[in-house]
Amino acid sequence: MNQKKYIYFFGGGKADGNGQMKDLLGGKGAGLAEMTNAGIPVPPGFTITTEMCTYFYQHDGKLPEDFDQQLKENLKKLEELTGKKFGDPKNPLLVSVRSGAKISMPGMMDTILNLGLNDEAVKGLAENSGDERFAYDAYRRFIQMFGNVVMGIDKNEFEKYLEEKKKERGVEYDSELTADDLKDLVEKFKQVYKEKTGEEFPQDPMVQLKMAINAVFKSWNNPRAITYRKINKIPDDLGTAVNVQTMVFGNMGNDSGTGVGFTRNPSTGEKEFYGEYLTNAQGEDVVAGIRTPKPISELEKEMPEVYKQLREITEKLEKHYKDVQDFEFTIEKGKLYMLQTRTGKRTPMAAVKIAVDMVKEGLITKEEAVMRIEPAQIEQLLHPIIDPKVKVEPIAKGLPASPGAASGKVVFTADDAERKAKEEPVILVRIETSPDDIHGMNAAKGILTSRGGMTSHAAVVARGMGKPCVVGCGELQVDEENKVIKVKDKEIKEGDWITIDGGTGNVMIGEIPTVEPGLKGEFKTLMEWADEFRKLGVRANADIPRDARKAREFGAEGIGLCRTEHMFFAPERLPIVQEMIMAETEEERRKALDKLLPFQKEDFKGLFREMAGFPVIIRTLDPPLHEFLPKREELMVEIALMKEKGEDPKKIEEKEKILARVEQLHEFNPMLGHRGCRLGITYPEITEMQARAIMEAACELAKEGVEVIPEIMIPLVGNVNELRNQKEVVVKVAEEVMKKYGVKVKYMVGTMIEIPRAAITADQIAEEADFFSFGTNDLTQMTLGFSRDDAGKFLPYYIEKKILKEDPFMTLDQEGVGQLVKIGIEKGRKTNPSLEIGICGEHGGDPESVKFCHRVGMDYVSCSPYRVPVARLAAAQAAIEEKMKEK
Amino acid sequence: MNQKKYIYFFGGGKADGNGQMKDLLGGKGAGLAEMTNAGIPVPPGFTITTEMCTYFYQHDGKLPEDFDQQLKENLKKLEELTGKKFGDPKNPLLVSVRSGAKISMPGMMDTILNLGLNDEAVKGLAENSGDERFAYDAYRRFIQMFGNVVMGIDKNEFEKYLEEKKKERGVEYDSELTADDLKDLVEKFKQVYKEKTGEEFPQDPMVQLKMAINAVFKSWNNPRAITYRKINKIPDDLGTAVNVQTMVFGNMGNDSGTGVGFTRNPSTGEKEFYGEYLTNAQGEDVVAGIRTPKPISELEKEMPEVYKQLREITEKLEKHYKDVQDFEFTIEKGKLYMLQTRTGKRTPMAAVKIAVDMVKEGLITKEEAVMRIEPAQIEQLLHPIIDPKVKVEPIAKGLPASPGAASGKVVFTADDAERKAKEEPVILVRIETSPDDIHGMNAAKGILTSRGGMTSHAAVVARGMGKPCVVGCGELQVDEENKVIKVKDKEIKEGDWITIDGGTGNVMIGEIPTVEPGLKGEFKTLMEWADEFRKLGVRANADIPRDARKAREFGAEGIGLCRTEHMFFAPERLPIVQEMIMAETEEERRKALDKLLPFQKEDFKGLFREMAGFPVIIRTLDPPLHEFLPKREELMVEIALMKEKGEDPKKIEEKEKILARVEQLHEFNPMLGHRGCRLGITYPEITEMQARAIMEAACELAKEGVEVIPEIMIPLVGNVNELRNQKEVVVKVAEEVMKKYGVKVKYMVGTMIEIPRAAITADQIAEEADFFSFGTNDLTQMTLGFSRDDAGKFLPYYIEKKILKEDPFMTLDQEGVGQLVKIGIEKGRKTNPSLEIGICGEHGGDPESVKFCHRVGMDYVSCSPYRVPVARLAAAQAAIEEKMKEK
Repeated sequence: MNQKKYIYFFGGGKADGNGQMKDLLGGKGAGLAEMTNAGIPVPPGFTITTEMCTYFYQHDGKLPEDFDQQLKENLKKLEELTGKKFGDPKNPLLVSVRSGAKISMPGMMDTILNLGLNDEAVKGLAENSGDERFAYDAYRRFIQMFGNVVMGIDKNEFEKYLEEKKKERGVEYDSELTADDLKDLVEKFKQVYKEKTGEEFPQDPMVQLKMAINAVFKSWNNPRAITYRKINKIPDDLGTAVNVQTMVFGNMGNDSGTGVGFTRNPSTGEKEFYGEYLTNAQGEDVVAGIRTPKPISELEKEMPEVYKQLREITEKLEKHYKDVQDFEFTIEKGKLYMLQTRTGKRTPMAAVKIAVDMVKEGLITKEEAVMRIEPAQIEQLLHPIIDPKVKVEPIAKGLPASPGAASGKVVFTADDAERKAKEEPVILVRIETSPDDIHGMNAAKGILTSRGGMTSHAAVVARGMGKPCVVGCGELQVDEENKVIKVKDKEIKEGDWITIDGGTGNVMIGEIPTVEPGLKGEFKTLMEWADEFRKLGVRANADIPRDARKAREFGAEGIGLCRTEHMFFAPERLPIVQEMIMAETEEERRKALDKLLPFQKEDFKGLFREMAGFPVIIRTLDPPLHEFLPKREELMVEIALMKEKGEDPKKIEEKEKILARVEQLHEFNPMLGHRGCRLGITYPEITEMQARAIMEAACELAKEGVEVIPEIMIPLVGNVNELRNQKEVVVKVAEEVMKKYGVKVKYMVGTMIEIPRAAITADQIAEEADFFSFGTNDLTQMTLGFSRDDAGKFLPYYIEKKILKEDPFMTLDQEGVGQLVKIGIEKGRKTNPSLEIGICGEHGGDPESVKFCHRVGMDYVSCSPYRVPVARLAAAQAAIEEKMKEK
Repeated sequence: MNQKKYIYFFGGGKADGNGQMKDLLGGKGAGLAEMTNAGIPVPPGFTITTEMCTYFYQHDGKLPEDFDQQLKENLKKLEELTGKKFGDPKNPLLVSVRSGAKISMPGMMDTILNLGLNDEAVKGLAENSGDERFAYDAYRRFIQMFGNVVMGIDKNEFEKYLEEKKKERGVEYDSELTADDLKDLVEKFKQVYKEKTGEEFPQDPMVQLKMAINAVFKSWNNPRAITYRKINKIPDDLGTAVNVQTMVFGNMGNDSGTGVGFTRNPSTGEKEFYGEYLTNAQGEDVVAGIRTPKPISELEKEMPEVYKQLREITEKLEKHYKDVQDFEFTIEKGKLYMLQTRTGKRTPMAAVKIAVDMVKEGLITKEEAVMRIEPAQIEQLLHPIIDPKVKVEPIAKGLPASPGAASGKVVFTADDAERKAKEEPVILVRIETSPDDIHGMNAAKGILTSRGGMTSHAAVVARGMGKPCVVGCGELQVDEENKVIKVKDKEIKEGDWITIDGGTGNVMIGEIPTVEPGLKGEFKTLMEWADEFRKLGVRANADIPRDARKAREFGAEGIGLCRTEHMFFAPERLPIVQEMIMAETEEERRKALDKLLPFQKEDFKGLFREMAGFPVIIRTLDPPLHEFLPKREELMVEIALMKEKGEDPKKIEEKEKILARVEQLHEFNPMLGHRGCRLGITYPEITEMQARAIMEAACELAKEGVEVIPEIMIPLVGNVNELRNQKEVVVKVAEEVMKKYGVKVKYMVGTMIEIPRAAITADQIAEEADFFSFGTNDLTQMTLGFSRDDAGKFLPYYIEKKILKEDPFMTLDQEGVGQLVKIGIEKGRKTNPSLEIGICGEHGGDPESVKFCHRVGMDYVSCSPYRVPVARLAAAQAAIEEKMKEK
């Protein structure tokens, strides 16, 4: 008879199904079949196919007539295999009933445990486990779960009796109730069941099972599941399978036990069997921490056979899944069951070691090793981390803004930081930082702020410096005036030691030891493999020679963005910059600019030297000029007070002059104001000076025999005429300088693409540009209409409410901003096929965004030096993914 | 012999060429041929073809061998026709030699006048004109012009002798030199010519002519002309023609004269012959104003034949060109010549009358009438204008920000305006206005500011109110504190009368009479015709019933944008709004919102009533909340001073509480901050209240039988999830309200498309939207990265330097922003074909932008009420243009 198969059995080393049958058996069912076939001792059971679910819905909640027959047959097989029987008062078979669709829908559908318990079976469980309390607790939980999931009884209907019982017995926790208390509760719960359903709680396990199967099928269409499928675009007609699996218990005596383990050390990556276990205990006991688990090595002495089997199985698992396994096992009366195995979570350090080791062991290929590392994680390997051996107790947790751990004495001002850092390490603590704090941030070991997000000033600058930084740590009340931090009931004063962990956001009191893994050993090997695969170039954003050197160490192939204005804040230069801004005539302005020229030239020489043989993109002045002057509102208050106090009118007049200029420069939306090339166009002498400094630096080094490749970048272009205007200024100066030095330097003139209009009219702009660099920070601000400095007011709420999937300043918004990037590249290449195209926004160091850059055909990405390895790895993964797709 | 024709003659009522031969004869040559053929007496002459220019360049500056022959033949013909002879000492033939390419290149190439003068001919000219001084002046000018244009001698080489002569004679102006002085100069100039060229000044007119023709051909490739062609994309190989035309003179006795005229009155449009003339005079004399010209009617008495001929010719001209002609004529010894005729400039009022009259006369079609009116002009017809009969003397000129003329007494604060306006008309004068000034602007007859551009606050609000406004009048020094305006050497005090003209930007002292043309008579007729042709709907932006009524009068078919927040500034509401903002809990906030609800509901009822039967789009709250609170810096100063003065700590604390909230709300770039739907999402209770007010108003009116069509618009959407979120809130409230009232109202929920990302992801957004309204103000700000409030710092410079062609906030940037609009429409209609699409930015009232909206397939445009007729006309023109293109 060619009967249709509704149910697939697994157990005893053999399964009806296999790992490929996800459509029919669901993900979980296929997995159980695969493990069983691989000889892994999973508790046996069977899977009811997804076709039954479809049938169920097509036939008004009924199953085929011969379904019962198949169910009975499978159950019988299960009883035979386990030696247990449904409802047996000595050795009862207990099962779990779980849903399992083709695509995982975690927590969306229902699960029932310990099915098979009834007034008789509970006695068998008590005897077998020697723990009557445990047995009745399991029984009352089963009634509650069954009542709730299968019959839809509100959980509180049961819970209230539990609360009552605890009150009656004067105890606080469930675990303090005795076996007799629980027996009482079982009776109460059965009563609730009857009251609510009008029926007795079913004592026949077969009835329980059929009702549970129905309930799982029904749960496919509960509102939660429907919504989940809608959001995740999972077809409604897939249906779910039902997995019925034997329950096993580790608390059945001293030949029983339970444990967890890893096939390799998840902290260090060392190849060593790693784990812990408890004899005569349930999984919960390991987690609860009431009893101290023993190291897995002791199992070898206690149960040598089981230990041997476990070693064999876990080795087999690792080979089968080709990755470190994190497993749970239970020993029931000397018999080993694997309850769960999954890819083991590991530290970044371990991840790299394991991947490289596995290639060496011939387990995986280089491509697989490269694909296996989460690029975002490896940034941490370049910074000191808290010594993994030390247990830390954070006093507060902020946002992990820039990775690395650092200890130091607390200071509250940038000036203090600079002064005290000469003697001992300091951590600069501020409510938030501003450009005035740069020197202090530079001197400190780490930065901690109580306000601001992942893209606040502190975060961006610290990442650029590669300095540990924790921001937005709202639990800290930072009192800058009185130089004290209040947190919970503690006070941290100036000079106290603290440690911050920019990888986790943790803040600790005291000095915690750290270790620095560095770009060496397996990490170095992995990065070399990555470079074999990647096609995308990787450059770094660096403003000073020190950062450039670091970038080279980390494998950067040039500088993608040098922000000249960062050089303007140095204490010996700021007054000259201010003089330039306060100038009332072009002549005065030129005088100040002449004084700045030698500084800039030296800066550029340093960068060119570090990057000899590699391109260096230097951006002309970008920020609005008022950023270099005192703040408007502070001046206003100061002047009002000076007047009130009747101070020297001359002094007041001086201040008022500054205020007048500040007022003139004041803008409602400086982000969209007089900055970028708009400055260079209205004050061409600024661009002239910068072009001169760049080209003189380049020519002088070229004469020394250093290979220099300057690329001069005009910011904030939205119209080709802007670029044309500035290019004319640059080219004129460049030709002049080269003539003066009698040397030819190959240089390029290009532009940022950071205004939506620039992307839209990229065909026109490309006719004048040698290169494009997508400034995705500003492009994101304008395309989304989000001010990066202000978005903190609603962005966290947006992400919480799932209006946005992620922070668009961290990961490129591919649907919106990304479309403009694509348009920009296509149009740009159309009129200028030799255009060099890269990205220099924060996204250049974000793995998903780097992959996007590869896919849209950029030539390179540029990111902060410490993210260079991240970008290299992500670029390699993008290339491998592309190759795999082509296959 | 089939000889190739190099030269085309015109004169004596017949021309070799015709008006179609622009390729061969250039634009000017073809025009002269056309007029000649039409029987218009233009001074005769001939045109050397553009082929000769090409030949000239292909043959190293030579012309064909038989060219000379044709030149001589044509010259002979010319001498015969005019009865004059080249070089004749009695009656010399003088000609002009001018370039004339197919495409006009004004001022780019060279012109030589009075060619033919030499030592003999000058005597003939003196005798004929009876004015020796005139003849020698013409001669010395000719030598200078010839020397400069043909031989490349620097003008200053001649000018310096002129200066010397004036110094010698102790006079200031050229006109004070005598005939003898000029004879002297002629000798000096000839001497210069010889010194610089090594040759005598050519006395043979034929030699002069050939040299001049060569020079004109050469001028085709002078650097100015090459650059001009490059910029305007005119092919270099077109070549220029050369026009040789007889000079005629009106100062040859009392049977000579010169004049100008219009075929209809250019001020009023009345059909009347209009002009003035001088007997025995040159054109210059009319312009110079030394002699007072006579009205043209007198010519009828003085030279009846000529007058009759002139009337006939000008009527013919008007019929030929089908438009009012502005003509110049000269009578040389009783013979009438038309020197120039062109389409006559006219006032907007005249333009409308003339177009409508001409249709009635059967001269042009309705389409032609509609196409002939500049839409931007007609806005002026809706506002009072300075009485055309009055001569005005402006004391200063600013930007014409909002048309209309208004007189009133000067006030300097919004409060003063409100108070004093109850008694007499006032003009509010401010350095610049802010939202706090709205009530004063509302009360004043007009607004005048010394700062700000065409899109400053004052300009935008005034246009919205339809109130005359002049902004950016930098000549005025407005001293708000001392309530006085200084301008030049005058002072205008509070209470003094002034008049402003928002159509011209003029500011006058005193009360100047005005007239109001209004939407009636010919204007009304024209608009009715426009409506016959246009396909685009026209709605108005209006926030209050009064504006809505005005909009209906002007033909608006609904409201495209009601900004609810404008209702929040009313004095009785602002405290409630502030209470809402200061609320610390949702409950407190809801309490304040409950108080606002009745106000908003009444507002909406008023609008719905005015717009019965038409759609009304109401936008939910848009601006950032801090706009409703006092200014941050002002509070800071106030508190600092209160502390310094030791004022009551309780009062200080109160202020500090407000400052704390202001600080919390403070944003670096409010344009990109917490506003628009971001507010509604974080405070859904605000959207709820507004939706309730709208729907309750709608339901109450619907029950009264008024047809209401509410469209609720969510601002600043960049992601479909934002719209989904707010739509849910709106729909829930709407259904609730309709249930409560027991009435069904058809309503729509849609969104502004004003963030670049919204346009890019319009396909997703359209799935949730019933309508799109392009908010091109913000879309321009973000697409171009220009803050409208700050762009004044560089935008004027950009336009001056031609980096931008026009202010993108006035006229839509079609290449940039327009592309996003197109993408938005295409994507939106793809997923939602029934999507209603319009525009509600400032551009909705700009004619070029309206035409763009038609071309990209929008359903309607929305603009301020006074621009509704402008938009109607522009929309009609767009439809007609499209039809013409299809033909």
